Order: sequence, then structure tokens, then C-alpha cells
Amino acid sequence: MAEAPIFERLCLIGVGLIGSSIARAARKAGLVRKIVAADASAQVRQRVVELGIVDEVESDPAKAAKGADCVMLCTPLGTYRDIVAAIAPALCPGAILTDIGSVKSCVFTDIGPLVPKGVHLLPGHPVAGTEHSGPDAGFAELFVGRWAILTPPADADTAALAKLKAFWAGTGSTVEVMDATRHDLTLAITSHLPHLIAYTIVGTAAELENVTAAEVIRYSAGGFRDFTRIAGSNPVMWRDIFLDNREAVLEMLGRFTEDLTGLQRAIRYGDGKTLEDWFTRTRAIRRGVVEAKQA
Amino acid sequence: MAEAPIFERLCLIGVGLIGSSIARAARKAGLVRKIVAADASAQVRQRVVELGIVDEVESDPAKAAKGADCVMLCTPLGTYRDIVAAIAPALCPGAILTDIGSVKSCVFTDIGPLVPKGVHLLPGHPVAGTEHSGPDAGFAELFVGRWAILTPPADADTAALAKLKAFWAGTGSTVEVMDATRHDLTLAITSHLPHLIAYTIVGTAAELENVTAAEVIRYSAGGFRDFTRIAGSNPVMWRDIFLDNREAVLEMLGRFTEDLTGLQRAIRYGDGKTLEDWFTRTRAIRRGVVEAKQA
Repeated sequence: MAEAPIFERLCLIGVGLIGSSIARAARKAGLVRKIVAADASAQVRQRVVELGIVDEVESDPAKAAKGADCVMLCTPLGTYRDIVAAIAPALCPGAILTDIGSVKSCVFTDIGPLVPKGVHLLPGHPVAGTEHSGPDAGFAELFVGRWAILTPPADADTAALAKLKAFWAGTGSTVEVMDATRHDLTLAITSHLPHLIAYTIVGTAAELENVTAAEVIRYSAGGFRDFTRIAGSNPVMWRDIFLDNREAVLEMLGRFTEDLTGLQRAIRYGDGKTLEDWFTRTRAIRRGVVEAKQA
Repeated sequence: MAEAPIFERLCLIGVGLIGSSIARAARKAGLVRKIVAADASAQVRQRVVELGIVDEVESDPAKAAKGADCVMLCTPLGTYRDIVAAIAPALCPGAILTDIGSVKSCVFTDIGPLVPKGVHLLPGHPVAGTEHSGPDAGFAELFVGRWAILTPPADADTAALAKLKAFWAGTGSTVEVMDATRHDLTLAITSHLPHLIAYTIVGTAAELENVTAAEVIRYSAGGFRDFTRIAGSNPVMWRDIFLDNREAVLEMLGRFTEDLTGLQRAIRYGDGKTLEDWFTRTRAIRRGVVEAKQA
């Protein structure tokens, strides 16, 4: 460890894909002195011990959080309230309480009132992941070249925020600070709506009576397989995302449905020009993604 | 070339991603004695000469087709009628006329009446591809481990069909014979609808006034990027697919919209159980895709 670590004791609540990747990345880059993890699942705790990716594993989140200068919630959004209620008495003044959830406004409303005075609530979201779940699925390079978005309150402590930014930068992420509402609107279109649509079509395909599931799987290379990858993501995590970002998802879904109806009408009436024009415009966005190295 | 080639003179009409991949695969595996290609674009013809992937390049498709024992249409579906009208007088009795288009029933209705007596019309569809277009995008391994579907008429010539099956098997594909109507229904869900939805959402994202295109691109790693890949496919090719498989696409789209509306309602009313149940079921389909090695 060339420089002093950013945190003395990092507490990870939840050690699934993201939590275990954070543990690996933090250790690899020497970002923290000690990592203590808590997980509600005995099976996950056992596996984390076997993998040797943290220094201590606890079943009680309050015990893990005690004395930590950074506590990071890496569990589905719906669990936050109970966890913070349990760990609040153990949180030290000056500690950072952050998370990795895919919706950010709800963090303030759900747990804001439970956070003890002197503890810095700084919500975060690394825009990275795979369709796999659990501690075995994580890897240290998950965040390299990806964006880590922080949505601090307007009056956030500058020094605490600087430390959290340094931590995420240390994992290889590019850090962006934005307003929680703006985050939720942006992610509704770039992540939440794509997941909802992928989940929908994969479910639709599974229920057809005139094409079998075996046929759907067999010929999935024509486009469907990419949707199945997305629709293989953690069901509880995604349930909570849709419930917690309801307004933004419903708004984006409304726009999507309007556009889809327009294209449906073009197909029904044989309006090739409308289709070709639309399909030509979308190519430019793809080029942008490739050029931004997010492909 | 260890064994005798399957075709003496393979004529490829259109040398884009698929046509150029077929040329490369056929030559690599020694499936044909000679490859003659035609393309309407002078730029493509020039590039095909530079790449050296075929033996002859013609601007006139009839000249390319003359004397061929297999003529393969590798252009968008909407071009078939004019091309076959032009090459019909040059087709030899006993020759195979086939294609690689993503819709199959329309091939019979569009060009069936133009095919000279004694020429075997055997439509085909390799379920393989990438989002890239043009002769530089092709590669010999594109068909390895993928399905090639043939949709011959009920009274197809057995010997001709056997040759075409051997050709596709020689490219590394697994060959499946099915009815054209069944093909079009199956591909409507595994390929056409996924493309339509991906095109739609990428277009929706591009037109938002409250989230910029730059933001959409920046945070695309959360799921959106997979849709941009699909929505980067050839616009003319896909316009024709939707127009030519209208009925099946509209049917699948209707089912998708019903399911999406159900999930939208669950989000609006906070029905987490419906969401979680749906998202859990879709995981099984993903496992099927992975196990079938189509991931």
C-alpha cells in the first residue's frame, strides 16, 4: 500500500455481485485498511469466507458497521430501511453512509430520517454490472472505465464527499456528481426501461402456445438472446428498482409506448419510409455508444 | 480441397455482411469450385475485388448467375423481385435458387412465379449476424454453431435440397428444415420483435428533451447499450423484414404490449409480487439459452 488508505474500516452490507466486486477492487487497489462484511444469508457469508475477499464477516450488520468510517449498502433497495434502523446506533459521527442502488431519490426519503446526526449520507450508484448474482460473480475490474454517480445532498460535507469520490476513482470508475432526481430520470431510460422491456419480451416468448420455449431458445441468436441476458438479472433487486423509481419509469414507458405504436402503425399500413427513417436515426446513437467506449 | 465441391459455380447476389461471410466460409471449407458475385454498388464491388474473397465480380446479376448451379440472393428482401426478373433468363435448369432473407413465406409469393421451370427454389435463412454491414464486416466463422433454416416447398427436389443442406452444414451451421409459415412465426418472436423494440427505445431515448443524447450514451452500460447494438443493424434490410412479415410481427407485438401493460400496471400500483414472479420466470429462459450454447 503505497499511499494511506482512503478508509480505515469499510463496511459492506451485502456481498453479492456488486458488494463482492467492491471488496475485490478495494483490496486490489489498496483503497482501505480493513473490510468488514455483513450478509443476511449464511450461505453467502460462508462463501465470502472461503473466497477470502474480506477481513471479517458478520451476520449482524450493526456489529459490522461499528467503528466503520464508511458503510456501504449493497443490498436491494427494499432492504435499506430495516438495515439502517438496525445499524443507526452503531454508526460513528463523521462516518459516511452510502449505497450502490440503482435509484437515488428514494434513498433520502427511505433512510434519510433514520441517519444519526453527524453521519454523512452520500448515496451512490456505480453504473456497472452483469446478469449474474452472488459473491462468486464479482470481480475486481467490474468498475474499470464505467461511471460511478454520486448524488449527495446540496449541503454535503466537502471532505467526506472528496473521500468517497477518491474511493470510486480508485476502483477505476469515472466519478460524476449529479442531482438524485436527474439520476433517476436518466437511468430510467438507459437502464430501467431496457430491463423492463427485456423482462417483458422474454416472458411473452415463454408463454406462447404456437411457438415452443425450445424453439425460442434454439433460434435466439437473431436478437432475442441479448434480451435474455438482461432478463436474467436479480429479480428482487429489479422489483425494488421499479417500485422505487415508479414515476420516472412510467414516464419513459409512456413515451416508448407512443413510439412503438407509431412504428406498429407504419408496419400495419406498409409505410416503409417511416420505418427506414427511424432505423437510420438510431444508428447514430449506436456510433455514439461505441465512440464513448461504453459498448 | 479433399472432396469434390458441392457447387461448381456459386453465384452470390449481394456481398454485404452475409454474402461476404458465405464467400469466405465456402472458400475456407472448399465447398465450391468457383464463386461469382454481383452487387449493385460499385463501391462494394471494388472492395470485394480488393478483399479477394470471390473469383469474379460482376455488376450485372444475370451475367453472374449464368451457368451457376447455385444462385443465392444476399440482398434485402425488397430487392428480390427485380433481381429474379433480371436473372431468370440466365438460370440453368437444375440450378438451385436460394436466399438468406429473414422472412420466408414472402419469397414464394414474391419470386415464385418468376422462377423458370426446372430451377429449384429453396429459400433459406442462416440465423446469424452482427450489427455491422458491408463486405468488410463478414468473416468465415459467422455461421459456426448457428442454425441455418431451410424452408423448401413440400414437393422440393430431394437431391437439390440435400446439396443445399450439405453446403450450410459445411459452413459450420446446424441445418433445420421447416415450413415457411412456422419459420416466420418463430423468428417474429426471437428476432423481429426484439429488433423492433430495440429500434423503438433507442429512438425514444434520442428524442427526449429532459435527458440529452450525450447522457444517454454516457450511462448506457446499465442495459441500454445492448439495445443500441441491435438498433445499429441495416435499416433497409430491417424495413423489408417488417413489411414482409407484417402479420406475424403484429401478432407477437400485440402479445408483448398486453404483457407490458400488465407490468406497467403492477409498477403503478406497487404490486411487487407480480413483478418479482415475472422476473423470476424469465431467468429459466436465460438458462436455456446458455445451455443451448446460443448465448
